[in-house]
Amino acid sequence: MAEQDSEGCAAARPLLTDLYQATMALGYWRAGRAHDLAEFELFFRHCPFGGAFALAAGLRDCVRFLRTFHLRDADVQFLASVLPPDTDPAFFEHLRAIDCSGVTVRALPEGSLAFPGVPLLQVSGPLLVVQLLETPLLCLVSYASLIATNAARLRLIAGPEKRLLEMGLRRAQGPDGGLTASTYSYLGGFDGSSNVLAGQLRGVPVAGTLAHSFVTSFSGTEVPPDPMLAPAAGQGPRVDLATLVEAWLERVCAHLGLGVQEPHRGERAAFVAYALAFPRAFQGLLDTYSVRRSGLPNFLAVALALGELGYQAVGVRLDSGDLLQQAQEIRGLFRTTAAQFQVPWLKSVPIAVSNNIDEEELARLAQELVSVGGQPRMKLTEDPEKQTLPGSKAAFRLLGPDGALLLDVLQLAEEPPPRAGQELRVWPRGAQESRTVRPAQVETLLQLWVRQGQLCEPLPSLAESRAFAQLCLSRLSPDHRRLEQPAPYQVALSEKLQALLHRLSAGTP
Amino acid sequence: MAEQDSEGCAAARPLLTDLYQATMALGYWRAGRAHDLAEFELFFRHCPFGGAFALAAGLRDCVRFLRTFHLRDADVQFLASVLPPDTDPAFFEHLRAIDCSGVTVRALPEGSLAFPGVPLLQVSGPLLVVQLLETPLLCLVSYASLIATNAARLRLIAGPEKRLLEMGLRRAQGPDGGLTASTYSYLGGFDGSSNVLAGQLRGVPVAGTLAHSFVTSFSGTEVPPDPMLAPAAGQGPRVDLATLVEAWLERVCAHLGLGVQEPHRGERAAFVAYALAFPRAFQGLLDTYSVRRSGLPNFLAVALALGELGYQAVGVRLDSGDLLQQAQEIRGLFRTTAAQFQVPWLKSVPIAVSNNIDEEELARLAQELVSVGGQPRMKLTEDPEKQTLPGSKAAFRLLGPDGALLLDVLQLAEEPPPRAGQELRVWPRGAQESRTVRPAQVETLLQLWVRQGQLCEPLPSLAESRAFAQLCLSRLSPDHRRLEQPAPYQVALSEKLQALLHRLSAGTP
Repeated sequence: MAEQDSEGCAAARPLLTDLYQATMALGYWRAGRAHDLAEFELFFRHCPFGGAFALAAGLRDCVRFLRTFHLRDADVQFLASVLPPDTDPAFFEHLRAIDCSGVTVRALPEGSLAFPGVPLLQVSGPLLVVQLLETPLLCLVSYASLIATNAARLRLIAGPEKRLLEMGLRRAQGPDGGLTASTYSYLGGFDGSSNVLAGQLRGVPVAGTLAHSFVTSFSGTEVPPDPMLAPAAGQGPRVDLATLVEAWLERVCAHLGLGVQEPHRGERAAFVAYALAFPRAFQGLLDTYSVRRSGLPNFLAVALALGELGYQAVGVRLDSGDLLQQAQEIRGLFRTTAAQFQVPWLKSVPIAVSNNIDEEELARLAQELVSVGGQPRMKLTEDPEKQTLPGSKAAFRLLGPDGALLLDVLQLAEEPPPRAGQELRVWPRGAQESRTVRPAQVETLLQLWVRQGQLCEPLPSLAESRAFAQLCLSRLSPDHRRLEQPAPYQVALSEKLQALLHRLSAGTP
Repeated sequence: MAEQDSEGCAAARPLLTDLYQATMALGYWRAGRAHDLAEFELFFRHCPFGGAFALAAGLRDCVRFLRTFHLRDADVQFLASVLPPDTDPAFFEHLRAIDCSGVTVRALPEGSLAFPGVPLLQVSGPLLVVQLLETPLLCLVSYASLIATNAARLRLIAGPEKRLLEMGLRRAQGPDGGLTASTYSYLGGFDGSSNVLAGQLRGVPVAGTLAHSFVTSFSGTEVPPDPMLAPAAGQGPRVDLATLVEAWLERVCAHLGLGVQEPHRGERAAFVAYALAFPRAFQGLLDTYSVRRSGLPNFLAVALALGELGYQAVGVRLDSGDLLQQAQEIRGLFRTTAAQFQVPWLKSVPIAVSNNIDEEELARLAQELVSVGGQPRMKLTEDPEKQTLPGSKAAFRLLGPDGALLLDVLQLAEEPPPRAGQELRVWPRGAQESRTVRPAQVETLLQLWVRQGQLCEPLPSLAESRAFAQLCLSRLSPDHRRLEQPAPYQVALSEKLQALLHRLSAGTP
C-alpha cells in the first residue's frame, strides 16, 4: 500500500521550532549573514538501549517537511508579535520569501545502520533558513530513529518468523507521537500496528480484533437480529451459529472436565457475535473472566462450531498474567482437543500475547509463541547534537570480502573516497593509535536526496526501507548485534580529519 | 493570547484509533447493538512519578476532536479495505452517517487534582460510536495529564516565583508530541515554552534567545552592515557598539584578572550581533568556550556597553557542567563587577540554566536560581484503563471547614450527592473498614461539558486552567503534595457502591 499523506499534513508545520531559532535568524539577518552558506549535521553520541547500533529513520518526514516549508502570513505575523516591536519590517519581508529552494540534504537511507558520530543527516543552505529548520528536523529524525531501533532490537529477539504488532497508540505522546511510533516500528521490523491512521496515511499493515470491553458488554441475553451463518464454501443451508456453539460447548466441557455452566455465557455471546461478523477471522480474547474455565472452553466451542461450517479460527490472545505459562498450557489443550475431536488444524492455532512486553519478556516468549504485540518501551538515551567535528564531512562504510561490516570512516568532504582493495590508515575514535584497513568494498553512507530544494530521486517506500533495514542488520556481526553489552562498532577518522581535530583541540586555528 | 487552532487541525483524526475498535464496531453492528447506550470511563490506577496526585488535562483536545468527528468517504473506504471483503455494505453506510451528536461527556475540569480510580472522563453515547472514540480520547487525555502532572511537580519544587520553561521539542515524540508537551507543561505550571507553534496555536508564552551554534558561527572577522546603535532613550548620537564593547572588555578583563586576548573574539562578535538585533533583550549564552575565561567577560563587556547606552541585559544562560556551582560563582562575579563599575542593576541579572534538569537537579537549583528550562523527564507509569468498578458513577470531593481536601467519594450515579454538614459513611479503597466523614463543603467532580454532541459551556482558556491547577494544588495538604513517599490521598466508595462491588466479586450477578 502506498503512502497517502503526500500533502504533508502530518509532517511538522513551519513554526514547530524553538523560538531561539527565530531570534537567531533575526541576529544573523541584522549582521548581514542571512545568506551565508551553512551546514548542520545531526548525529547521536551513544547508541540507545545499551546496544551498539541504531537504525536511521525519519528522512521521509524530513523531505515531506522541506518540500512544503514556507512561512504563511499568519506565521510571520505571529513571529512579529513575539519579537521586539521595533524590529525592522524588512526582516519580516525576508521571512515571507524564504523556502527550501536553496537547501541540500544528504542522509543515510532510511533503515541504514547508524553508529555514534556518523551523521544521519547533513543539511546545507542559507544560514537563516537552515537555522529555522534545525529543530523540526531534529524532532522528526531523533524519535523516528529511536523507535525504529527499538523495533529492530525486538525483531532480533523474536527472530524473523514471529509476528510483531505495535499497539501503543493509547499511551503515545499525543496523536502524532502515535502515528510516528506506528510508522517507524514497522520500518524497524514490526509486522504491523493497531493504529488505523498509520495504515491509511503510511501504508502500515493494520491488525486488531476485540477488547475486553467487547466481551463484558454482552450478558448472554442478547438476541442477535440474524444468528444464521452460511457454510464457508457457500454451499448448503445456513445454520444458527449460537445453537451449534451450545452443542459444541457440552462436548468441550466434558473433554476439559468442566461443568457446562462454568464458562461465562456473556463471553460466549460476545464470541458468537464476533464470529458472525468475522467468520473467517475469528480470534478469541481469553482472559476477560477465567482463561481456563471460561475463555478457553468458549473459544473452543465457537472455533469447533465454525470448523464444522468450514471456517478456521485465526487464533487466541492473552492480555494478562504469566503469558508464557498460560500459552504453553493452552497449546497443550489445543493438542488434546484436536486429537479428541479429530480436527488437526486446532493443534497449531496461533497464540498471541500482549500487555507491556519488553525485551526481557519477549526473550522469554520468543521460543514459544508466534505473535506478540504491545507498546514499545523506550528509554530516551540518545543524544542528537550538532557537529562537534569540524568542517563538512563525508562518511563511508568499509566491508570485508564476505560483505561483513568492518568499520565506518569519517573524512573531510574534499578528500577522495576510500577505494576497494586499497589500504587505508584511519584513527578509530576513542583509541590512541591509528590502524590500517583494506576494504573489499566501500559504501558511501550519506546520499544526496535533496539538492537546492529538489528531490533528487524518489524515496524508497516504507516497506522497501523496512526490508533494507533487515538486510543491513543481517550484515552486522553478532558481536555488534548483541543487545546487551555488545562490542562497540568502530567509527574512525581519516588521517586528515584526525589531524585537523588535533590542531583545533590544541587551540591552533 | 487566545487559542488559534479552533479548526481542530492539531487534534486527532477520526482514524487515529486501534483497528479493533473498528472490528468491534462491526461486531456490535452485526449483533444489532450499534445503538445500545454505552458509557466508558477513563481513569488511572496509580499516580505517576511516585506521587499522590495527578492533574487532569486534555479535555480541550477531546472536545475539539469530538466536535469535528465524522468519517470522511476516504476513511470509510480505508476501513472497507481492511475489513473482510464480504462485509455488508450497509455497515459502511452506517459509518458514513455517524458523528458525536449522541455523545455526552462529563469530566474533571482541566487542572483539577485527580486521584487513582476517580474518572477523568466519562463518555456515553451509542455503543458503536463510543467504541471508536475510546482510543483517541485515551491518547489525548493520558499524555496530557502526565505532562501536566510532571510540570506541577517541578513547579512545586521550584516554588511559585521561579521562571520555568519547557524546551523539549527536539526530543519530543514527533511533531504533535511536542505540541502537546508544550501546551500541558504550561497548564501544569510552567511559565512558557520554546515551541513557537504552541504559542501560535495554543497561546502558550514563548521564550528563547540563542544557541551555541549562533556563537560558533561567528569568527570575529565579520563586518556587520550596520554596527551602530542608538541610545535606549532615543536621544543622542548612534554609537558603534563593537568599538564600545572592546573598550569595556579591557576594563572587565583587568577587573577579572584575565588577559584581554583570552575571551573568544568570535563569541564576542556573536554577542554583539545579538545585542544589535535585541538591545532590549540581550542574553548571553556563556558556555560555548569557557564560562570563566570567555563567556562571562564577553557577556560583561557587551552588557556594560549596552548599559552605557541605557539598555539593561536580561540575563545569562548556562547549558552544561555543574549548573549550581557555576551559577553561584557567576552571581558573585556579577556582584563584584557591579560594585567595581557602579552599575547596581548588574548584581541581579537573572541566571538561567538548562540541560536535562530533572526533579533532583531542580531541587538543588531551586534555592539559588531564577529560571530553569529543559525537557520534562517522564516515567510512564500511569495506567489508564476502562472501568472495573461497575455501573455509571458520580464523584465528589469532600472538604473540611478550612477548605482542605478530605477525600473523594465515588458513588452510583443514582445516589443523592453528599451534603455539606451531614455525616456520611464511606469505604476507603484498599481499607477493610468503613469510616464516617462530615464534610464542610462538597464539590461535584465530574462536570457536564458535552451533551448530545453540544458544548454545554465554554471551556476555560488554557491560562485559566493553569491558574485553576495552582489553586487546586494549594488546597492539597503537604502530606499528599510531597513528591516522594507522600501519604496517599483517600478515595472512598459509598456504601451502595461498596455493596454492589462486594456482590459482584462474590459472583452474584
